[in-house]
Amino acid sequence: MQENHTLTIVGRVISTLKTLDDCPLQESEEAPPASIQVLPEFIETVKDLVAGHDIVILTWLHQADRSVLSCITRRNIGTPVKGVFSTRSPDRPNPIGLHEATVVSNDGNGLLKLSALEVLDGTPILDIKPKI
Amino acid sequence: MQENHTLTIVGRVISTLKTLDDCPLQESEEAPPASIQVLPEFIETVKDLVAGHDIVILTWLHQADRSVLSCITRRNIGTPVKGVFSTRSPDRPNPIGLHEATVVSNDGNGLLKLSALEVLDGTPILDIKPKI
Repeated sequence: MQENHTLTIVGRVISTLKTLDDCPLQESEEAPPASIQVLPEFIETVKDLVAGHDIVILTWLHQADRSVLSCITRRNIGTPVKGVFSTRSPDRPNPIGLHEATVVSNDGNGLLKLSALEVLDGTPILDIKPKI
Repeated sequence: MQENHTLTIVGRVISTLKTLDDCPLQESEEAPPASIQVLPEFIETVKDLVAGHDIVILTWLHQADRSVLSCITRRNIGTPVKGVFSTRSPDRPNPIGLHEATVVSNDGNGLLKLSALEVLDGTPILDIKPKI
């Protein structure tokens, strides 16, 4: 079987964070409320996600530099360069973001309001999983 | 900027789990030790991962059915069908697996031995992140 390694975009983030300059360093620092709009053909996937559910959201950090293999973390200028798999830098071969959030509401038409999310407006959504 | 949504395979899992029949239901149930072989061009990304590091591994569950939007979980036959984003089923639009493990050793040539991992032999690796 030929493997298909092309991602399917299932939705997009709706956020007041419009540029990287708007983003806090860590999710714990004042991430704003945000929403996810799931595309019409995928509304069925989120039908059981309701207020209070804790979820993990996988995003495609579409502004990342996929050629980066080592980096210096923002908080540690002056320290040795680290392999990117020891960091949470978005610049990496597959810039998949992992974010935790709590569902605030689900309008039944694919719009999920979330407690807080540090993700740029328009970022593609790949997957949502229940938090274990 | 045209977005590129094609994944880059950075390595593969090496495991005694050869078929889905070999897999336990949950990672807590007797997942065997396993390894990751990172491809030569990506060895730099893992150079700082050493024994004792707790990591999150993102895999591409290449045997999954990507057309599935709702399912019945294996432990809950008889319960209502759920949207896949409320489940951890591998069958989903983007079958990205999330797995936690501890590094046991790193040979410096891209071979990471891990404490335990419930992933089939040969499964592609997409990303590794430090556990927060």
